[in-house]
Amino acid sequence: MSPFRASAPFTPEWKHFGFTVDDGVATVAFDRPDRLNALTFEAYADLRDLLLELPHRDDVRALVLRGRGRGFCSGGDVDTIIGATLGMAPDDLLAFTRMTGETVRAMRECPVPVIAAVHGIAAGAGAVLALAADFRVVESSARFAFLFTRVGLAGGDMGAAYLLPRIAGLGHATRLLMLGDTVGAEEADRCGLVSEAVGEGEAADAAQRLARRLADGPAFAYAQTKALLSRELDMGLSGSVELEAVTQALLMKSEDYREFHAAFTGKRDPEWKGR
Amino acid sequence: MSPFRASAPFTPEWKHFGFTVDDGVATVAFDRPDRLNALTFEAYADLRDLLLELPHRDDVRALVLRGRGRGFCSGGDVDTIIGATLGMAPDDLLAFTRMTGETVRAMRECPVPVIAAVHGIAAGAGAVLALAADFRVVESSARFAFLFTRVGLAGGDMGAAYLLPRIAGLGHATRLLMLGDTVGAEEADRCGLVSEAVGEGEAADAAQRLARRLADGPAFAYAQTKALLSRELDMGLSGSVELEAVTQALLMKSEDYREFHAAFTGKRDPEWKGR
Amino acid sequence: MSPFRASAPFTPEWKHFGFTVDDGVATVAFDRPDRLNALTFEAYADLRDLLLELPHRDDVRALVLRGRGRGFCSGGDVDTIIGATLGMAPDDLLAFTRMTGETVRAMRECPVPVIAAVHGIAAGAGAVLALAADFRVVESSARFAFLFTRVGLAGGDMGAAYLLPRIAGLGHATRLLMLGDTVGAEEADRCGLVSEAVGEGEAADAAQRLARRLADGPAFAYAQTKALLSRELDMGLSGSVELEAVTQALLMKSEDYREFHAAFTGKRDPEWKGR
Repeated sequence: MSPFRASAPFTPEWKHFGFTVDDGVATVAFDRPDRLNALTFEAYADLRDLLLELPHRDDVRALVLRGRGRGFCSGGDVDTIIGATLGMAPDDLLAFTRMTGETVRAMRECPVPVIAAVHGIAAGAGAVLALAADFRVVESSARFAFLFTRVGLAGGDMGAAYLLPRIAGLGHATRLLMLGDTVGAEEADRCGLVSEAVGEGEAADAAQRLARRLADGPAFAYAQTKALLSRELDMGLSGSVELEAVTQALLMKSEDYREFHAAFTGKRDPEWKGR
Repeated sequence: MSPFRASAPFTPEWKHFGFTVDDGVATVAFDRPDRLNALTFEAYADLRDLLLELPHRDDVRALVLRGRGRGFCSGGDVDTIIGATLGMAPDDLLAFTRMTGETVRAMRECPVPVIAAVHGIAAGAGAVLALAADFRVVESSARFAFLFTRVGLAGGDMGAAYLLPRIAGLGHATRLLMLGDTVGAEEADRCGLVSEAVGEGEAADAAQRLARRLADGPAFAYAQTKALLSRELDMGLSGSVELEAVTQALLMKSEDYREFHAAFTGKRDPEWKGR
Repeated sequence: MSPFRASAPFTPEWKHFGFTVDDGVATVAFDRPDRLNALTFEAYADLRDLLLELPHRDDVRALVLRGRGRGFCSGGDVDTIIGATLGMAPDDLLAFTRMTGETVRAMRECPVPVIAAVHGIAAGAGAVLALAADFRVVESSARFAFLFTRVGLAGGDMGAAYLLPRIAGLGHATRLLMLGDTVGAEEADRCGLVSEAVGEGEAADAAQRLARRLADGPAFAYAQTKALLSRELDMGLSGSVELEAVTQALLMKSEDYREFHAAFTGKRDPEWKGR
């Protein structure tokens, strides 16, 4: 647990998705399979809170997002979210859209690597959650749909207009976000959206294998790698090389760096402590 | 028409390219086919002014750029532009180069989606105009040439050194801008420059179809999508998710968002109003 | 030589790599082939100093980086660098990591185009040096390994977490830097890392041909192209089009721009002066 906890307890139970932890690998499973895992207000709020708690826990070194049933996540529910927002006042609407954006920001700023296991459809907010993950393990029949303009909203939701151009380039991002068309795994791969391509029914297992590798590896090094990648998107070259220089000097004082050298000279595999 | 017009009239006639408007779709046709549509000082100025007027007009919801004859646009005319600049004073040179850059900036900041229909050659300023469009519909024999270094100028002209790395990545952008070599449609596609690949002689029609789809769609949502994509290239993650949150809250008060829900629950197609 | 030199002499001899200049083309050859050209503290320092001197010399208009023996460069030496850093104080560690970052920054800010001729392995700092070059000429059996997390360090070293997302996109960059896996030439090409693909044993010659073309071309135009590409990664659209406008106005007063027009109208090849 973080050495700097105060009075706040951890959330004892996540009620709006499945949540398990297995030896350092946490898994969030969206579990409204009858609605293609459409998100509710409460599911967003739980995901935001979980992502803000994770950095303070010591028991999670990798996080997998997956969906139960036929697909990953079909996004905000048309009935319970779109319908409800039609009657909401401006400040409540902003509270909602801010919450969804804060969820993505928490994913990007969370030191724990996040892996999206994508099968079937990842649509709307579901597509953005996959986009905000560090790794996307994608089945060959998976589909992505940034369909926001098709419901009359801006194509950039929850940071998608920030993230997608930085992953796919501005041309592909414009096409995907402006038109909202559904794209398959092959097209997603061409756009840089696929970290690991797998066959039908293999995403969940492949994501667990990758999470296991990350959880058993040098967690401090991974956390700082993610921090550098996230922060330097918004930084210039001069500040970036300085941030990397200070980061590496700090990590050269870590147990894991010493352990690498001992293992290398001892001709054995390193035993990472993650610190 | 914009509710905030003052004394300035709209330009009654564009003299330096063809200009038509058909039910929300405007088309600019470069029409010096005997010179491969080489640009003149006046053509740049007309294009800049048109792009600054478009946001104030209500009758244009998509813009197509195309060239008459054998190609899209061969860039600044060697005789009437390069020859003329050799005798110009520094302040006049800067007035010219600023005008060309302002044209690109106006394209990127204009809320109307811009589609370049590229056949034959897009060279020099012609290549940059295609680059600054939101969509590039590209024929299989089209060619792009960012040939500025070949005339002794910097490879980054009119914002090309800003746009191309953000579309194609820094590696491809360096190669294309530094060397100025001509690349075909296949190589352009590999660099993320192709939004829609079409066969010979099909670019103009395909661009009109895409423009029709955009003009008939939720124009306010499209305009804000473009604004988010353009502005967030220059913004950090924190500001970007906040901008998207406020944008979506605003759009959730739009007629089109309400119309989507009514159409969805009524099992009919939405009738977009664009506001 | 630069018109603005003061008392400092040029370094008379580079002791830690091979260095030759042939009619405007400089070549740095890493030459510890028995250690796969692993870098020493002194080799980093020499490379940093050379890159800071180059802009002041008139005799170098292109720089090739290559490795002798079986590969390009295997990065920091496990014995002489990793071993040594284990006993170093925090300020000395930072002095080291800053030096390596300054080398990359100097490569990016140096007006001379840099070409990496990559054969065999480019690992660790070797991969980052290739990444910081303007062009990568890559043999079909070449391999890149951003292996920093495998030694317990952050995956972003010497600016890699800044450069790689801007070349390959955030998705590919996350995968390569977080996992540290070795990738072959084909995968590198898919990630935008290959400027020119060549066959076995051809990288050195192909890099020299490209360097010759650059050295014989309009050097001032090339230098400003590189400056625009490097600086505009950290700039907004508005400042970028203004920087390009002022740059082109300046270059329109150069001898090479005038020479292009004279050669074009005289139906002959231009003779570039590089100013």
